[in-house]
Amino acid sequence: MKRIGVADTTFARVDLARYALRELAAAGTGFRVLRRTVPGLKDLPVACRQLFGQDGADLCLALGMPGKAEYDRTCAHEASLGLLFTAVLERKPIVECFVFESEVGSDDALEELGRRRASEHARNAYAMLFRPNDLARRAGAGLRQGFPDAGPARRAR
Amino acid sequence: MKRIGVADTTFARVDLARYALRELAAAGTGFRVLRRTVPGLKDLPVACRQLFGQDGADLCLALGMPGKAEYDRTCAHEASLGLLFTAVLERKPIVECFVFESEVGSDDALEELGRRRASEHARNAYAMLFRPNDLARRAGAGLRQGFPDAGPARRAR
Amino acid sequence: MKRIGVADTTFARVDLARYALRELAAAGTGFRVLRRTVPGLKDLPVACRQLFGQDGADLCLALGMPGKAEYDRTCAHEASLGLLFTAVLERKPIVECFVFESEVGSDDALEELGRRRASEHARNAYAMLFRPNDLARRAGAGLRQGFPDAGPARRAR
Amino acid sequence: MKRIGVADTTFARVDLARYALRELAAAGTGFRVLRRTVPGLKDLPVACRQLFGQDGADLCLALGMPGKAEYDRTCAHEASLGLLFTAVLERKPIVECFVFESEVGSDDALEELGRRRASEHARNAYAMLFRPNDLARRAGAGLRQGFPDAGPARRAR
Amino acid sequence: MKRIGVADTTFARVDLARYALRELAAAGTGFRVLRRTVPGLKDLPVACRQLFGQDGADLCLALGMPGKAEYDRTCAHEASLGLLFTAVLERKPIVECFVFESEVGSDDALEELGRRRASEHARNAYAMLFRPNDLARRAGAGLRQGFPDAGPARRAR
Repeated sequence: MKRIGVADTTFARVDLARYALRELAAAGTGFRVLRRTVPGLKDLPVACRQLFGQDGADLCLALGMPGKAEYDRTCAHEASLGLLFTAVLERKPIVECFVFESEVGSDDALEELGRRRASEHARNAYAMLFRPNDLARRAGAGLRQGFPDAGPARRAR
Repeated sequence: MKRIGVADTTFARVDLARYALRELAAAGTGFRVLRRTVPGLKDLPVACRQLFGQDGADLCLALGMPGKAEYDRTCAHEASLGLLFTAVLERKPIVECFVFESEVGSDDALEELGRRRASEHARNAYAMLFRPNDLARRAGAGLRQGFPDAGPARRAR
Repeated sequence: MKRIGVADTTFARVDLARYALRELAAAGTGFRVLRRTVPGLKDLPVACRQLFGQDGADLCLALGMPGKAEYDRTCAHEASLGLLFTAVLERKPIVECFVFESEVGSDDALEELGRRRASEHARNAYAMLFRPNDLARRAGAGLRQGFPDAGPARRAR
Repeated sequence: MKRIGVADTTFARVDLARYALRELAAAGTGFRVLRRTVPGLKDLPVACRQLFGQDGADLCLALGMPGKAEYDRTCAHEASLGLLFTAVLERKPIVECFVFESEVGSDDALEELGRRRASEHARNAYAMLFRPNDLARRAGAGLRQGFPDAGPARRAR
Repeated sequence: MKRIGVADTTFARVDLARYALRELAAAGTGFRVLRRTVPGLKDLPVACRQLFGQDGADLCLALGMPGKAEYDRTCAHEASLGLLFTAVLERKPIVECFVFESEVGSDDALEELGRRRASEHARNAYAMLFRPNDLARRAGAGLRQGFPDAGPARRAR
């Protein structure tokens, strides 16, 4: 039985974990979900570290939503470096799923973008643990999360 | 008995620790506070490291107030990375509470912002140690510290 | 028998690994290729860490394609730092091969740039493992990957 | 007997260590000074690491003077991150004292700023080792090094 | 017998190692040089790590030449952080010698700047290993590498 850690925040304006959990449940079985909710983005790295170390997670999904200000971009950058550092130290993947408030113009669009991106990253997380060949088959395919795929530069001819 | 480390600076223009300590005392019992005051922001990471390693803290609250100059933003960024790195190494949370002098226009507003943000981060720190479910219940709720909450993108309907 | 790890992404719009593998096969023998495909750039460092630690790679090739947005440059920067950090911790080389979508103006040019750069970095990877003297002989020669070589500042006279 | 490490550079245009050492001598006794001079800012982190590891320092003072160019700011940022990282790894404080050439307009002002800032940081270093309560008493007091103190936002009333 | 590691690149347009080696030979004896040539700037940190760990170097000289593009500055920044991190982990100095193509306007000037800076950094490397007092004597002297010294702010009077 694999363990998937889910770390999310009270800062986010969308309940990203709800969408991620729903998608994980739909993706398959053979795993258990562990969850830690922290105040903000920069608390995610240590939450993942604890999900790995104390809770035995095999992979973490780190869900966050940087605000609109310039400073929020700095926070996101810092959090990303912390997540990268944690994953490398733990030797286990952290799937980062950040939705920037500034990516869209309305609350409804933010909810919808959050839903789509969290769901698609959750599917990726599932594939990394259980179906790595699904990823290998789509190498270089120009996949995106939350927005339409860009697709490969060279279409099949 | 849990231990909460509080690291603060002589550089800050508001006694953030005073507000944090008052809030912690109001939040509940079952913990002891350890404190280290250092000159500036960049001294906070090693102060937290010592609060964890020498003083046995279970969580640290890092309180700082970057000045108005462009360079102060760089210092804050460096200090944040150091705090993140420390928390990950220690596997224990550091609640970063930074109040930028440039966020407000007067000394009175700075004092007030400092009071509110330090108090709210202290409450978060308490919740992380003693009431993690309080945070989980408010995942995606758009909470803010020091300013009014942004609220969730999708209001309950 | 040496082991070369190849990490690539589903985000990339060109199947960079295909070109790298073809070049490696043409370069010589004495090695086995291990591959891990991950969703995006920031997943590459931990993929390399796993290629080294679990799969026994002696060197990794990290292939990625940052998108056109400003934010993609930040992601590439973060991924690069993660790759550097991983290589230093593992004491083994990671050859980073990033192709930015913004470097060229059309899909065909992107495919071609990807092909050339991935091939040339693969050749470098092979040289690092099997023919380090080939590199030493060309120190200061102004070599480039994907674009024409800049050449030495002082031409042989 | 405590040990204070002092790391400085040949790049700096002011002999910052001289001022720091004078101030340390005036501050009190009970410590021994160890010194390492390196070429530039980026050599300071490993110099401190050696002062801690080989020379047994309990605290280091890292003195540097970034030049006027934009690139010097990048070097200072890199050096700061290295110093932070070193302090956290060693679990011992490094008091960073950087004087930017661009902070003032003349050589005389640079010498004077260097003198004041190095002296004040040396006093802080002494306090951190021997009189931590002096710092705690001035938490939130808006202290500055090299320039007049900003003072607390809320004056005693 | 000390060991000096020299890491350089095929990307550079000047054979910086040649100048460094010549200067080291002129500086004195008592050391052996170990060399590793890698493709680019970002390969230097792990090359130094290997020079220390596998080849037993006591100090490394990292020679690189960032190109003219904005992106090259990012690469240099990343490489610098990797070098700093490596030196701190190894507890041994890495003398970074980067010559930016954009510092000068012609190939001849680039060759000349490379020659001067590599030579002067090599002399520093030698001093760090064998004559640390030479550096201490020139603390705060405003020394530069590749360009004329800035000199001390306060001339001897």
